[in-house]
Amino acid sequence: MSDLDRSRAQGLMQAAGLDALVLFQPEAFRYAIGAPAGVATMWGRAGAAAALVPADASLPLAAVASDHAALAIRLKSPAVDLRTHRIWIDGVDLQGATRLADIDGCYRRSGAGGPRPETFDRSRCFDLLGDLLAVRGLSHGRVGVDLEFMPAADFEALRRALPTISWVDGSDVLRRLRAIKTPNEIHRLRRAAQAAEGGLVRMAKAIRPGSCLADLSTAWKAGAQDAATAGGFSLSGHWDFISVGPDLSNMAAVVSPGVLIKADVGTLVDGYSSDGARTFSYGPVSDLAQDVFKALEAAFAAGLEQIRPGNTFGAVHAAMLSSMRRDGIGEYFRGHFGHSVGGSVGIEEWPFFSANNPELIEVGMVVALEAPFYGQNFGALMIEDQFLVTASGVECMNALPRNLRDLSAD
Amino acid sequence: MSDLDRSRAQGLMQAAGLDALVLFQPEAFRYAIGAPAGVATMWGRAGAAAALVPADASLPLAAVASDHAALAIRLKSPAVDLRTHRIWIDGVDLQGATRLADIDGCYRRSGAGGPRPETFDRSRCFDLLGDLLAVRGLSHGRVGVDLEFMPAADFEALRRALPTISWVDGSDVLRRLRAIKTPNEIHRLRRAAQAAEGGLVRMAKAIRPGSCLADLSTAWKAGAQDAATAGGFSLSGHWDFISVGPDLSNMAAVVSPGVLIKADVGTLVDGYSSDGARTFSYGPVSDLAQDVFKALEAAFAAGLEQIRPGNTFGAVHAAMLSSMRRDGIGEYFRGHFGHSVGGSVGIEEWPFFSANNPELIEVGMVVALEAPFYGQNFGALMIEDQFLVTASGVECMNALPRNLRDLSAD
Repeated sequence: MSDLDRSRAQGLMQAAGLDALVLFQPEAFRYAIGAPAGVATMWGRAGAAAALVPADASLPLAAVASDHAALAIRLKSPAVDLRTHRIWIDGVDLQGATRLADIDGCYRRSGAGGPRPETFDRSRCFDLLGDLLAVRGLSHGRVGVDLEFMPAADFEALRRALPTISWVDGSDVLRRLRAIKTPNEIHRLRRAAQAAEGGLVRMAKAIRPGSCLADLSTAWKAGAQDAATAGGFSLSGHWDFISVGPDLSNMAAVVSPGVLIKADVGTLVDGYSSDGARTFSYGPVSDLAQDVFKALEAAFAAGLEQIRPGNTFGAVHAAMLSSMRRDGIGEYFRGHFGHSVGGSVGIEEWPFFSANNPELIEVGMVVALEAPFYGQNFGALMIEDQFLVTASGVECMNALPRNLRDLSAD
Repeated sequence: MSDLDRSRAQGLMQAAGLDALVLFQPEAFRYAIGAPAGVATMWGRAGAAAALVPADASLPLAAVASDHAALAIRLKSPAVDLRTHRIWIDGVDLQGATRLADIDGCYRRSGAGGPRPETFDRSRCFDLLGDLLAVRGLSHGRVGVDLEFMPAADFEALRRALPTISWVDGSDVLRRLRAIKTPNEIHRLRRAAQAAEGGLVRMAKAIRPGSCLADLSTAWKAGAQDAATAGGFSLSGHWDFISVGPDLSNMAAVVSPGVLIKADVGTLVDGYSSDGARTFSYGPVSDLAQDVFKALEAAFAAGLEQIRPGNTFGAVHAAMLSSMRRDGIGEYFRGHFGHSVGGSVGIEEWPFFSANNPELIEVGMVVALEAPFYGQNFGALMIEDQFLVTASGVECMNALPRNLRDLSAD
């Protein structure tokens, strides 16, 4: 099922003067169509799959995809008007076949046999897209494309293939659509945050003097995986940025008493990534580390207080920077103190808690708020949690206490 | 260290009439510069990092990257002429600091303090790139860009920012460069294949009636990880496409006597992915499955015989398709029977063993040869191995026998 709100899409497209959106990025295809774009997108090129979202919300969603991806799309999104093109992968239904001599008949019955392109046929994909646009009366329309993804070489080919259409950048409409989440998207992000916390719990238990980065990462992954299994869901991915000790570039660092341990981690559920971080030590840390952490705690609290519908993303940044300044750190500067989270490309999604950002915080957004400090010859410290913006403020998707936790005291 | 052969690059650029290559794709940056492009490339946009490869091999490599990525680049590739721009991540060297009041002095000493952009500053990156080109006398040059990656929105901005340069598509030159591997790249691909085989050995041991896909995948991953550890290297990633039984779309399938088990798997070493596949069963398979596998074995052998320097990629495809036809399968068709492997985007790298492909097989290429058959209501079968092309023919990077292995007989 699509995660796209057709009514909001209609409003945003009308405001931008667009008759439709055509999305080539695999993540955007999946978002709009509700099923994967297929393996032929692995090269990051456009023309293996395309999603068509007419501005008129009464017109059905449409898509072009490979014959290989079609079955899953038809099962998951039966209402989508789907056109398919052949890719390199041979496949046939062998129902009833018992001998080699039966196989050709199976191909002929299903139409699966015959020549296939080297990988995928971009021009065939564009032709089918042209047909879908024509049927909707959009052959001379103004159509937004995800030009922040689409390779320039492929965009040039699209313009040549469908020259009567006025192609413009639809990236801003797509970004604004994705920034507000459906209940399904929120559910995935909740699960992803829950699994990542399960990983942090396991990692904290495993930390001992002598533990190396790989030990911590392995424990984190195992805990995240087990939390997902216990929750009855599976992970589509995971990532971790863990640092140990004062040399932030030392990948061979091991835990020793009093060094800082920072874990910035996330898991993915159906392509939606959580983002969260905690700081630990084994044994007491220096006074300076304690003081920096207190400053981060104060900044985090100051930022959190500003996250409410109608306030700007910039207000959160301003509150956090002011807090750091009040605590006497005058030269520290972050480009952003957090961001939207979701199923877009990159862990961090637009919009950002950045300086003077006039974008409004809205109900249904899911954001990560982060207060990090990276000191070479010192260590890294970070607090990060994930929040759903609600009518009355925020709901935290994390449960672990945010303190700098001395694990030797457990 | 760069994996790019400057002398070949000079020849290819001269033939294409290029004065330089500018590469924005993170994988291409890493290939040319020999160090990661940095975290600011996570959004798949251009303008976080750029590699400059002058056609004149006597001129040094140059790069634009973030201040955050600079340390690793300077360590790994000290000869690269590097210009840096600030990204959103704050960081400071706190050497000698003991109190909060010491911190601002640390920022001032290192120049690390002060405003930072929301994420990264694309226009600053393009300006620095313009400086690097100007210093080399290329401000009016003909420069190849990786337009098969570069988002159209970013290419438009690049053309506006540096309008005196004649920007053309350099993707073909890049592809041809990457298709022939350095000893370092070959070493990574050997290790990756070795780890993947360790995974297959572990998986084969774990297969029992009742095993589900997740069991097989978990065993594969653990075996691959352990093989890497035993070999003294680490994996930068892994992937597996495992199928069990006659319904190829059934993710809940479990092993039962006589069903086909196909594992198409790879691990990554420093971003270089192996690609290989084996077919198993637990208990004897049907006569038809045996006959199809025999046809695949014959096709594989026929293709392998054609892999030698100077032969075309198309000759391999023709030999394999002819073999399938000889065995009575007339409608089967693969777009390709294999491909180059390496550290590009996507598991499969150009060129492909595809129909009528005139590209020549050359010494130093590493290729995967594959003979797959996907039958719905039947099962999947596949043989795939990885080969280094040598002056005398090929050297296989895999050791496991290629037969359809009945694990109940072990």
